[in-house]
Amino acid sequence: MTFELIATDGAARAGRLTTANGVVATPIFMPVGTQAAVKALAPDDLRAAGAQIVLANTYHLFLRPGHALVRELGGLHRFMGWDRAILTDSGGFQVFSLSKLRKITDAGVEFRSAVDGSTHFLSPEIAVEIQQALGADIIHPLDECLAYPVSRSDAERSLALTLRWAARSKAAHARERAGNQAMFGIVQGGAAADLRRQAARATVELGFDGYAIGGMAVGEPKPAMYDLTELVASLLPPDQPRYLMGVGKPDDLVQSVARGVDMFDCVLPTRNARNGQAFTADGPLTLKQARYIRDGAPLDAECECYACRGFSRAYLRHLFMAGELLAYRLLTLHNVTFFLRLAREMRAAIVEGAFGPFQARFFSRYPVATTPEEPGHAARLSAAD
Amino acid sequence: MTFELIATDGAARAGRLTTANGVVATPIFMPVGTQAAVKALAPDDLRAAGAQIVLANTYHLFLRPGHALVRELGGLHRFMGWDRAILTDSGGFQVFSLSKLRKITDAGVEFRSAVDGSTHFLSPEIAVEIQQALGADIIHPLDECLAYPVSRSDAERSLALTLRWAARSKAAHARERAGNQAMFGIVQGGAAADLRRQAARATVELGFDGYAIGGMAVGEPKPAMYDLTELVASLLPPDQPRYLMGVGKPDDLVQSVARGVDMFDCVLPTRNARNGQAFTADGPLTLKQARYIRDGAPLDAECECYACRGFSRAYLRHLFMAGELLAYRLLTLHNVTFFLRLAREMRAAIVEGAFGPFQARFFSRYPVATTPEEPGHAARLSAAD
Repeated sequence: MTFELIATDGAARAGRLTTANGVVATPIFMPVGTQAAVKALAPDDLRAAGAQIVLANTYHLFLRPGHALVRELGGLHRFMGWDRAILTDSGGFQVFSLSKLRKITDAGVEFRSAVDGSTHFLSPEIAVEIQQALGADIIHPLDECLAYPVSRSDAERSLALTLRWAARSKAAHARERAGNQAMFGIVQGGAAADLRRQAARATVELGFDGYAIGGMAVGEPKPAMYDLTELVASLLPPDQPRYLMGVGKPDDLVQSVARGVDMFDCVLPTRNARNGQAFTADGPLTLKQARYIRDGAPLDAECECYACRGFSRAYLRHLFMAGELLAYRLLTLHNVTFFLRLAREMRAAIVEGAFGPFQARFFSRYPVATTPEEPGHAARLSAAD
Repeated sequence: MTFELIATDGAARAGRLTTANGVVATPIFMPVGTQAAVKALAPDDLRAAGAQIVLANTYHLFLRPGHALVRELGGLHRFMGWDRAILTDSGGFQVFSLSKLRKITDAGVEFRSAVDGSTHFLSPEIAVEIQQALGADIIHPLDECLAYPVSRSDAERSLALTLRWAARSKAAHARERAGNQAMFGIVQGGAAADLRRQAARATVELGFDGYAIGGMAVGEPKPAMYDLTELVASLLPPDQPRYLMGVGKPDDLVQSVARGVDMFDCVLPTRNARNGQAFTADGPLTLKQARYIRDGAPLDAECECYACRGFSRAYLRHLFMAGELLAYRLLTLHNVTFFLRLAREMRAAIVEGAFGPFQARFFSRYPVATTPEEPGHAARLSAAD
């Protein structure tokens, strides 16, 4: 994997990530394909939406259908019919957010499957083995993702564990390095700036192909998230890609690109589609509202996706209210298209040296929530889809 | 609407139905789009599957979103983004199969909505008005669909009512004939050959653009269904299309084409897809079976659909077991493609004068159930999807 910086505009960056399965133009949004499928979309839909890389969840694929089966069937790309890039997380986040009865030791974590309640064990070495079997282009070391807020001592203990696990993960990956598979380090450290600084330095010192910023959007206030993102990004090597895990809303993407982030994933466009919400440059639109009953306009007149070219809001609302499966596909296709267009537009603005005016234009239309979100809201969004 | 007979082979017929929205090559299978959508498929999927005409259910669209709204938004074709032919049933079958608290009089039928329990009234004139508002290419008169078995006196009373309603429907349609909209008569009469004969003669005497054979596949034995179909078809004008409502399995299609039927609809390919069943020339395949866990082969090696070109049985099984929405789309796409290919192959065989050898080949592979189905099984299949 190689990463080339094409242009910068302030802290914002436009780059080119070359993987064994295609080139990814950054900034990029990665649709979440938790169980080897982006919910409601087929690979042809993802291509039509402009997706260049998707995320798959190690935790879910480990439990079902199992990484050995995926390897036997030719790896995840072939299994899910996706010939562009794939990134897998380490499974850590889901072990901590979805599984009950976790027993964490230095060796690893024992947990109960959210699928069938069976007991499993994940170590840094096993997480690498699973991700090598899946064959993703970019993999991650097992980490501990803290809840928010936590005590100082818990945050310190957790960071130390994540860093020990990162070193073991890197060693395991180096021993059996498969083809062109890259590994990103994950910068944790909770909400304390000094721990984030320490985490960034120690992770960069271990040396990875790129760096993920983890443990964000878990309930901390938005300004804190932006500040910590800016801080961590400033400590990462400029010539390597930076991935902000589980973020976020369209405005979060713009704010984070402005602070030097290159890659994002979030369940928001897919999950909210299944709740009848469509994103537009003027903010999200909630189809169940009665105002759309007779609305013959497309979801988003600025969008070129199949849902917007072929169907009215009134029809999509009818499908959604009637529980028709087609509603989920069309709304998901639109939302993923919207997030990917936003990423492309940001990239174009950075290349032109016009990211400032782009931000001004974006925020002149996109409504940003002024009321604080309930604790845990963001954490639920950054889970697997 | 015009119908042209291209070739016959025994009783089997190949024809060309020309509607205001495209040509339909018969024999044809019509996917069921109950609520203005064929479940899990978009119009682009239907085109890829080779669909030339789809069925929509008057009952469901009357209740939600309402025919006035569909008319206001430009009619059903525009509403659902389908520019080929559409056929609507009269709503009668669903009133009798889905709604409770029916009060049937000569005037019409009062019933409770299966959506919200509200009370509605459907008369022959209202059913025509609804279908004109929807703007389907082919519409049907309100009829009474009998359960099986019924007493002789009930069958006679019901047939008389259906015939009176047919006359009123034709008159209502003639008064406000919209564009090129055709109306088929429905031949009822239950399981008694003499009543079917009487129904066919009286319906043909009223004079319609084509004829539907209704009240089949409601629980009568298969041989009786085939015999009655053969009898009714033999009494219908040879130069007009014949539609066997709610039928059926692939072997039923072949048996009925052999008896002179041109058009079919059934929820089987779509509904069974959502239960994990895929049709092939060697019979249906049930994906939840453990034998497919490691099966790298496509669903059906003879199929050119997107599901069969791009994905393995193992992957589709994984999607189905994991409850992924994509499973429903891909399996539905495959099944609808299979039914439409079967129709095309029958047509080609008839045109070549080789329908006999085609039938022999088909039945040498396709397993026909030898155990009788439980009563009501077929009736459930012929309901809306």
